[in-house]
Amino acid sequence: MRVYNFSAGPAVLPEEVLKRAAEEMLEYGSSGQSVMEMSHRSKEYQAIIDSCEASLRKVMNIPDNYKVLFLQGGASMQFAMVPLNLMKKGRADFVITGQWATKAYKEAQRFGTANAVASSKDKTFSYIPELDESKFDKDADYFHICLNNTIYGTRFPKLPETGNVPLVADMSSCILSEPVDVSKFGLIYAGAQKNMGPAGLTVVIIREDLICDFPEDSKVPTMLQYKTHADNGSMFNTPPTYAIYILGLVLEWIKGKGGLTAMKEINEKKAKIIYDFLDNSSMFKATVQGADRSLMNIPFVTGNEELDAKFVAEAKKNGFVNIKGHRSVGGMRASIYNAMPVEGCEALVRFMADFEKNN
Amino acid sequence: MRVYNFSAGPAVLPEEVLKRAAEEMLEYGSSGQSVMEMSHRSKEYQAIIDSCEASLRKVMNIPDNYKVLFLQGGASMQFAMVPLNLMKKGRADFVITGQWATKAYKEAQRFGTANAVASSKDKTFSYIPELDESKFDKDADYFHICLNNTIYGTRFPKLPETGNVPLVADMSSCILSEPVDVSKFGLIYAGAQKNMGPAGLTVVIIREDLICDFPEDSKVPTMLQYKTHADNGSMFNTPPTYAIYILGLVLEWIKGKGGLTAMKEINEKKAKIIYDFLDNSSMFKATVQGADRSLMNIPFVTGNEELDAKFVAEAKKNGFVNIKGHRSVGGMRASIYNAMPVEGCEALVRFMADFEKNN
Repeated sequence: MRVYNFSAGPAVLPEEVLKRAAEEMLEYGSSGQSVMEMSHRSKEYQAIIDSCEASLRKVMNIPDNYKVLFLQGGASMQFAMVPLNLMKKGRADFVITGQWATKAYKEAQRFGTANAVASSKDKTFSYIPELDESKFDKDADYFHICLNNTIYGTRFPKLPETGNVPLVADMSSCILSEPVDVSKFGLIYAGAQKNMGPAGLTVVIIREDLICDFPEDSKVPTMLQYKTHADNGSMFNTPPTYAIYILGLVLEWIKGKGGLTAMKEINEKKAKIIYDFLDNSSMFKATVQGADRSLMNIPFVTGNEELDAKFVAEAKKNGFVNIKGHRSVGGMRASIYNAMPVEGCEALVRFMADFEKNN
Repeated sequence: MRVYNFSAGPAVLPEEVLKRAAEEMLEYGSSGQSVMEMSHRSKEYQAIIDSCEASLRKVMNIPDNYKVLFLQGGASMQFAMVPLNLMKKGRADFVITGQWATKAYKEAQRFGTANAVASSKDKTFSYIPELDESKFDKDADYFHICLNNTIYGTRFPKLPETGNVPLVADMSSCILSEPVDVSKFGLIYAGAQKNMGPAGLTVVIIREDLICDFPEDSKVPTMLQYKTHADNGSMFNTPPTYAIYILGLVLEWIKGKGGLTAMKEINEKKAKIIYDFLDNSSMFKATVQGADRSLMNIPFVTGNEELDAKFVAEAKKNGFVNIKGHRSVGGMRASIYNAMPVEGCEALVRFMADFEKNN
């Protein structure tokens, strides 16, 4: 029996997608092969990657002057690739909203001057700091944010106004959860393992003018140059073919649900079910308040570590898994990505109410 | 109906493995989740990656002073990671036996002095060059070979004697095809998409003393430092979880067949079926002769491009797919990795004999 999986990532995938993947595992269409076995240079596979990219462009409404790259290495690899490719003057601004934002900031320091324009570290990253635009470096190569903070359950309620400085966003845990205006960004990156598909695929959406040439003797590895992948349709070497296929199926599923406008509506409904319960509970309390609350990751606590542990254990027994909070916040966290059905959130809230009554 | 897939990679996988993956797609064991949906920090997933590593260690007889790393980015990423991590004095030797060996050599030039000690470029890489040990740099940081050359169908009949200089080998297209003495190598790397599993997983086997520390302000990206992954059990960030699971299933399948000694026997039998036919055919001819012949990739030609094209087209119609040769060699290539059954080779040879009779 399938459980309700509140994992922060890798995370729940749509059951329809998994069913289709299982059905096609031994033979995709009439190809006589599993997608896993297909040469990435074959016509059959080219159709799969082309259709995946077309779906992503359609679903996210990606402008024509942006390239879509299917890469590997996760957001952590982007923490290096972004500065290696974008730091021409050697300076970038960062907003420090959590562990991942901090990692991006620290990794960029290897390659140039990374400037922290604001931080919410003082309160365990439980809010998005106010941004003082006068502190922004007008000549920075880019301005980096982590749009949704998986561990702390916050998201930027509005985008920073960075003028001509390209906005770069780690969207690993919120991509595809609601519409975004891609044209506001210079570069978007996301590990696939939350809303997109299996771990091992990283999607980069980059404005073409930010893709630069490197001299032949550059010390930037060929594989870390965006141009390598942009010039070769993400086929400079073998891409993570199966993960791209699954992303294609997930995108078909999103289109079938009505696209990102519909996803947003459903996600807001799901989040409201849980936040409303938390705001009215005398036992459980959300760790984030107001407009900074994430639609995707909802951390909450009882204020009593033993009670937290008891809750996590009983939840697991009742089919609500991976609900333990990150060690830096403690308590619990419900990650409710696109593939978590409304019923999962309703069932969780019913279980929490029962637990509250009995404890 | 499943075809006989002679793709050079991504390539055929054991049908038993695909069946099991299909059966477990919606629920792995009694976990209530697909492996694709599992938190990489969960006990369930830790058991999967631990068991995969244990199987690889057992099957390849990997000594205890070697680390096994599950990485991303393919061999192409290793072309940079190897010099970035191993080039301390800044010099390495390379044997140029094909396109991939050349890429490794050129990428290393970004980071130090890459010395080509021998090459077989003069005859389209159709042989492994004799090595003159007096030309080896006794103080090199490492000595690099591509043990099996996928495009050209050659493999080293014996390993170079490099003394105290660590031997580094790209084994992408021959790993797990026969026993190797891991202790002869400083570092082995392989993209998974031939004998191991799906594209998007790269296995590195590295002698522990070659894993170095980097200063905090090093310009080597965190993700390109072997130490990052070695210190974190390949879990510094989310690894390609599903591909690792499939590799685990493939390793179980290999163990069930009798391990690498048995694989070697079967692979020699399969290769002999095809080479024997080629050596006796008046139409088809192998492009590689003698001891340098690969067990995994067998290129062959008719000497007539039109006839080659006709053969490839008719083969496809008859269920023998991806048999077209690489453009740099032309003609045909039969890649017969572990998962290609003996019957596939027998059927191919029967089809070739019929084609020869009728053309």
